Amino acid sequence: MSHKRMGNQTVVMEDPPEIITSYTVVGPMEGQGPLGGTFDRVWKDSLNQEQSWEKAESKMMEDALQGALTLSGIQQDQIDFQIGGDLLNQLISTHFAARSLGFPLIGLYGACSTMALSTALAGMLIDGHFARYVMVGVSSHHDTAERQYRMPTEHGNQRMMSAQWTVTGAASLLLGRSATGIAKINGAHPKVTAATIGRVVDLGVKDTNNMGAAMAPAVADTILNHLQDMKRQPSDYDLILSGDLGEVGWNLVKDILRQSKVKLGDEFADCGRMIYGADQDVHAGASGCGCSGVVFAGDILQKMRLGKLRRVLFVGSGALHSPISCFQGESIPGIGHAVVIET
Amino acid sequence: MSHKRMGNQTVVMEDPPEIITSYTVVGPMEGQGPLGGTFDRVWKDSLNQEQSWEKAESKMMEDALQGALTLSGIQQDQIDFQIGGDLLNQLISTHFAARSLGFPLIGLYGACSTMALSTALAGMLIDGHFARYVMVGVSSHHDTAERQYRMPTEHGNQRMMSAQWTVTGAASLLLGRSATGIAKINGAHPKVTAATIGRVVDLGVKDTNNMGAAMAPAVADTILNHLQDMKRQPSDYDLILSGDLGEVGWNLVKDILRQSKVKLGDEFADCGRMIYGADQDVHAGASGCGCSGVVFAGDILQKMRLGKLRRVLFVGSGALHSPISCFQGESIPGIGHAVVIET
Repeated sequence: MSHKRMGNQTVVMEDPPEIITSYTVVGPMEGQGPLGGTFDRVWKDSLNQEQSWEKAESKMMEDALQGALTLSGIQQDQIDFQIGGDLLNQLISTHFAARSLGFPLIGLYGACSTMALSTALAGMLIDGHFARYVMVGVSSHHDTAERQYRMPTEHGNQRMMSAQWTVTGAASLLLGRSATGIAKINGAHPKVTAATIGRVVDLGVKDTNNMGAAMAPAVADTILNHLQDMKRQPSDYDLILSGDLGEVGWNLVKDILRQSKVKLGDEFADCGRMIYGADQDVHAGASGCGCSGVVFAGDILQKMRLGKLRRVLFVGSGALHSPISCFQGESIPGIGHAVVIET
Repeated sequence: MSHKRMGNQTVVMEDPPEIITSYTVVGPMEGQGPLGGTFDRVWKDSLNQEQSWEKAESKMMEDALQGALTLSGIQQDQIDFQIGGDLLNQLISTHFAARSLGFPLIGLYGACSTMALSTALAGMLIDGHFARYVMVGVSSHHDTAERQYRMPTEHGNQRMMSAQWTVTGAASLLLGRSATGIAKINGAHPKVTAATIGRVVDLGVKDTNNMGAAMAPAVADTILNHLQDMKRQPSDYDLILSGDLGEVGWNLVKDILRQSKVKLGDEFADCGRMIYGADQDVHAGASGCGCSGVVFAGDILQKMRLGKLRRVLFVGSGALHSPISCFQGESIPGIGHAVVIET
């Protein structure tokens, strides 16, 4: 009946949709990091002449979406859906960007896993013949996230060594049906071939300064289910890329999977460990929708277009708590959503 | 290429998915209203022995999801996705309910339009062969929403006459592919036959005590586009049901559409005008994800199963602001998402 499902949790595309273009906009600190040269635009400061950090984040997402659209040469009214989200309450970055662009909107909340979840859903809606072109957009902003989740950055409080640094960045993708006739301007178009939608997993971690530990069990669960559903080994992938586990969570996932006889080797990397240099003093790594968003839409897709990577499992990781749920003594539920990208 | 699209914004199902079961849980005030007899469960108080209103809301959503699942006789591990959301920051009601139930989760944020958006997406994922069974769940809670968006209810501030009352209620649907062989336990299974995903529309309303006015232009835009895409008249529907426009927004939609030569008559109703009685002193009506959720999953689906309604256009309405965006002087963006339900 549902011939596009494989195993318990995985869907497989019949006619894999293509990622036609992508675009990234980041803040100055991300521009100075080791991936600085892979981003399409680097802002000189995190406010970019807007009146608030929130307005700046929304503009950043709008610029990212407009960037991928312009690169593609596709007309604005050909876009069937915008799919995506951000970290801010009521997804205001996404909603104000969508107000400017006018696309029919499906707003998602998957915390920092939003890029992977949105890409999976965009792939399904295209492969299901409900859309020809879909734009994906995600964002996060260090200063908006800090004051919403933790402390205003002006407060200057000391950070724990297990804490991660929220990326200021927005990323977009323009996906379309295969063989759309859009010229391949910068190498092959990577395709979305499969996706594994994650379950909420919560092993009781309550420390909001250690989100890597909170997310690791969910990411391990999704990787394990994906491999079992597809009957694959980690070595079947050139790269297994988690979203923003950071140093603590990345090591935990390897430990957890080893107990299930799955050994992750050099093919396992984490966006949260890639975007900042050791000299940038971010402690356990990076986080935020923008973290996996700009690493995936920048560095990774560039390497895929050039044939340096052929099959990637991209596993977005999300911590699904709120400040209120933590104040009420709840632990932090985690989730991992995976998409397979191939050329 | 995308043969399931019609016109600019509408998708049409090839093999319309069925709504196999639905379930509603509401608070005491909703139980005392004119639709009280249509709900599956009425709580005696809005806390239901939980330690906080937030924990109560999450439990309410869990109970609604479990209710529809139990009614259907389908096993928990046969559910391919849970789709839905709520009004709370970071969708904590949804995430904690999903943690208990263990379904692969797609979290949506469409404010009070979430029931219609989730139903549309569930329909697409089933019709696209990515799932056989999908659960939809939404919730809102008066006391959690008031303290998040406005004032703690203990404060007892005076409400404007244009203000709406957030419903305490959770609703769920269990959708599946047609001809699943599930016995029709209470009449025909209504089917999802088409959907129109809305665009963000913002005409500059800044008054958070008048959300009906903020949402009306978006709802009118979606109804107009839907009718044009499907080449239909309002009279082609037994009922055009908006989510939670309330008294102010409901009248505005009729005015706006009259300017486009579309006359809405007695077939146009609004969930926000139905759930509370005139004696319940809620001013302009009801609102919240739970408002359209429990009216649609209760009264409307019951009438469809009994053949009293045969073709319904259900248009969820959402106000996409946040307290932060309003404090920063932004107006309130609105959205409307429509699904066609037929027996």
